[in-house]
Amino acid sequence: MVIKMTEQYKIFEASLTGTENGNPYSDIWLKAAFENESERIEVNGFYCGDGSYKVRFMPTKPGIWSAVTASNDSALNQISLTCECIAAGEGNHGRVLPMNEVYAPKDVTEESRYHFAYEDGTRFRPFGTTCYAWVNQPEHVQEQTLDTLKNSPFNKVRMCIFPKFYTYNVENPPYYAFAGNEEEGFDYSRFNPVFWDNLEKRIGELDDLGIEADIILLHPYDKWGFADMGRETDVFYLKYAVDRLSHFKNVWWSLANEYDLLPSKSIEDWELYARVIMRRDAYGHLRSIHNCLRLYDHTRSWITHASIQRVDNYKTSEAVTEWRQQYQKPIMVDECAYEGNINYGWGNLTGEEMTRRFWEGCIRGGYLTHGEVYVQYEQIWWSHGGSLHGTCPERLAFLRKIMEEAPKEAAPLKLTPENHGENWDVSCLCKEDDKSYFLYYFGFFRPSFRTWKLAEGCVYEIELIDTWNMTIEKLPGVYTGNIRIEMPEKQYMAVRFKRV
Amino acid sequence: MVIKMTEQYKIFEASLTGTENGNPYSDIWLKAAFENESERIEVNGFYCGDGSYKVRFMPTKPGIWSAVTASNDSALNQISLTCECIAAGEGNHGRVLPMNEVYAPKDVTEESRYHFAYEDGTRFRPFGTTCYAWVNQPEHVQEQTLDTLKNSPFNKVRMCIFPKFYTYNVENPPYYAFAGNEEEGFDYSRFNPVFWDNLEKRIGELDDLGIEADIILLHPYDKWGFADMGRETDVFYLKYAVDRLSHFKNVWWSLANEYDLLPSKSIEDWELYARVIMRRDAYGHLRSIHNCLRLYDHTRSWITHASIQRVDNYKTSEAVTEWRQQYQKPIMVDECAYEGNINYGWGNLTGEEMTRRFWEGCIRGGYLTHGEVYVQYEQIWWSHGGSLHGTCPERLAFLRKIMEEAPKEAAPLKLTPENHGENWDVSCLCKEDDKSYFLYYFGFFRPSFRTWKLAEGCVYEIELIDTWNMTIEKLPGVYTGNIRIEMPEKQYMAVRFKRV
Repeated sequence: MVIKMTEQYKIFEASLTGTENGNPYSDIWLKAAFENESERIEVNGFYCGDGSYKVRFMPTKPGIWSAVTASNDSALNQISLTCECIAAGEGNHGRVLPMNEVYAPKDVTEESRYHFAYEDGTRFRPFGTTCYAWVNQPEHVQEQTLDTLKNSPFNKVRMCIFPKFYTYNVENPPYYAFAGNEEEGFDYSRFNPVFWDNLEKRIGELDDLGIEADIILLHPYDKWGFADMGRETDVFYLKYAVDRLSHFKNVWWSLANEYDLLPSKSIEDWELYARVIMRRDAYGHLRSIHNCLRLYDHTRSWITHASIQRVDNYKTSEAVTEWRQQYQKPIMVDECAYEGNINYGWGNLTGEEMTRRFWEGCIRGGYLTHGEVYVQYEQIWWSHGGSLHGTCPERLAFLRKIMEEAPKEAAPLKLTPENHGENWDVSCLCKEDDKSYFLYYFGFFRPSFRTWKLAEGCVYEIELIDTWNMTIEKLPGVYTGNIRIEMPEKQYMAVRFKRV
Repeated sequence: MVIKMTEQYKIFEASLTGTENGNPYSDIWLKAAFENESERIEVNGFYCGDGSYKVRFMPTKPGIWSAVTASNDSALNQISLTCECIAAGEGNHGRVLPMNEVYAPKDVTEESRYHFAYEDGTRFRPFGTTCYAWVNQPEHVQEQTLDTLKNSPFNKVRMCIFPKFYTYNVENPPYYAFAGNEEEGFDYSRFNPVFWDNLEKRIGELDDLGIEADIILLHPYDKWGFADMGRETDVFYLKYAVDRLSHFKNVWWSLANEYDLLPSKSIEDWELYARVIMRRDAYGHLRSIHNCLRLYDHTRSWITHASIQRVDNYKTSEAVTEWRQQYQKPIMVDECAYEGNINYGWGNLTGEEMTRRFWEGCIRGGYLTHGEVYVQYEQIWWSHGGSLHGTCPERLAFLRKIMEEAPKEAAPLKLTPENHGENWDVSCLCKEDDKSYFLYYFGFFRPSFRTWKLAEGCVYEIELIDTWNMTIEKLPGVYTGNIRIEMPEKQYMAVRFKRV
């Protein structure tokens, strides 16, 4: 019998002892169904070496949850587990889910389908970053990464389970997910608990920082064999990953990075893997799959949000408008190229251009993920983590603040090719129903002035926002009717109207 | 009898006297067919007021060309005209035509369809500019415009016949193409010779500067009624314009600016107008039509080159690649927005962005037209002409020189979405067959270095080109095999390889 007190949305964990004989990873199954008065949540326990097994559970409501284990190992069978769940503490909002699955039907609007919310109803606006292989770096780099994230604007990290082999990524990791090593080969029927313990520690630390872990389950940058294990091993691995990690409230499932660079896996494989994850994940964490050259069909029902790498070098986050239309789901631009100076076109944008892409995508009702590739440093953030050196992060913090100040119902102004009014050239986030809020973003345009015809009877305060220099200048007085606003002839300006 | 000596491709003109009765513009026809040993060119004379008529002819070959007039006015009938044509002088290359119509079949390549040549075989690379209403400005501004053009890199001007009414364009012009004026109304059955004389003087002066006159025959920016004269008057006007102007070797016909903002004219109207022009123009000058939001179907056989306004704010001259594929004709991006500071998104680009669009379009095998809109000046170049104040023109002169130095057969490197090699991110103009020339343009990317795998056995000189600061730095020595080139981490760089 195990009784533990657990905070809502945090992890109840029971450690059990069972057989070490044979291959417990594949031979032994262990299940538990946690029940409170009204709900039942079935989870799979897992083996973690040396005869040790664990059953984890994330209680979604306060109160008593109880379960009795079932297993084909008698030592693990019929054990009573009791989770005394206390209410979520401050800053603990539970899982992130599609907004329209969280909000009460009366609160769901047409716009809700494009956004995220924590399960307690708090809005979640992803400001992602990318540290693909940070959990596969030396300990001190991992610590440094966490320290950097703590002081960053980022609340989501794209991160791989398997190590990365690619330009600037040639070192072996300290541990591997599977038993074995490069020299002697890997045993794809056994996992390496040391790796998973560390991974879980890091996911938990991210959670403590309020950061979502966008877990990339498979990826092509490989010399060890993890990119090409075959369908059966992939499924074996995916089940183990879900059994261990799904209890972390901050986990998102990214089936792959650049799925289309894994030619040995077919669309049927990916669809199967999605089903495996959905059947195994008791909590319905967010799911997506990320492309290189060809977008996945993000209309598929298992995909909760489109995880997109831009497929055009010139029109990037501006395409959020079309992607929203096409997929009718939250749009997460998980790669729109990175700030940096690498030789490749995916990683040598100026901070100005990277920041512009973020603004453009956010104003259009999408979400973006940052990355940084300055090759002169020992650790390059995009893959290793470490420290940030770019000019973007503080601007993205500024943008995040501006976005958080927008009214809850703000949505992109609908512009069609036929809508050739004064503002055809700029994107705008606004609250159109009561005309209480308009945020225009000018990107690389740099007008010397601008005119607006304000809605009849509406009076506004106006602020000029320099998105690069991070200043907000409130213009004197209030505005109504036909107005002309002098602008500084600079790129990267925004203008915010707040109805008085 | 009129005998005149005329330089090849210049204008033979016979002034005749006929009736002033009735309305000679509509009542009198006057024709002449000029013949040499092997050719016959039929032209229409025209009335120019006060009983004066003119027959013009552009001889396309040296030698004696003779004609006898025919007219329904006996005073204009049966008059012998002799043009003693001498060979073209220096700098006189004749009309600009599609390259594949000028080159001998043996010299026509797959790439030829995308380019222009003078009829003497000299390549013509348009570097256009836009002064829509310059011939409708006061005399001294017209003179100033010519003076500016003389010292500019531009060799094509987009210019309207009718005056322009639009933002910053509210003054009446000194003269109108039709008889009458705004106060008393216009007589759409009679032309105003004073206007046409001045227009022709200006076209001739452009020709003297080696500048093509891209004549915009109809446009929507109107308060006088010229945009909405009806089909019959449109045709009457088009015939007169062609009868007068087609003899200038530097004339191009642009049926409209922003044809789709003229809703009173249908596609059938435009197709009719094209046929009218083709039947009336003995010389087959270049013909196109320019859009606002919807591109015209540039596959139509009468269209010699696609005259395009970009229809996307973010992907502009990069679309040259797709437009070439789509239309299989020369691509002339006649508006990719302008350098300036106006309140509208079509005219407040930085010089950097405008120059970038030119480079991008040229490297991709297209041609572009410049424009400038700095609103603080009395004359705004884009419409009035006057003086240039922007940062672009000297950079475009630099680009033009670089393009003129490219081998005749240079063509864009073919990159497909599947071609995901090292250079997927940059555009490249090159000579692929003998690998003698590669010009890579990096646009807003700013790598700190770049690697190339040079073709086996090829040795190159390499130059780093800073397209913004207009410097060319030859790197020491020569290069072969796998190379790494250090780059300055700056935007707007190009790298040129010349095989030794």
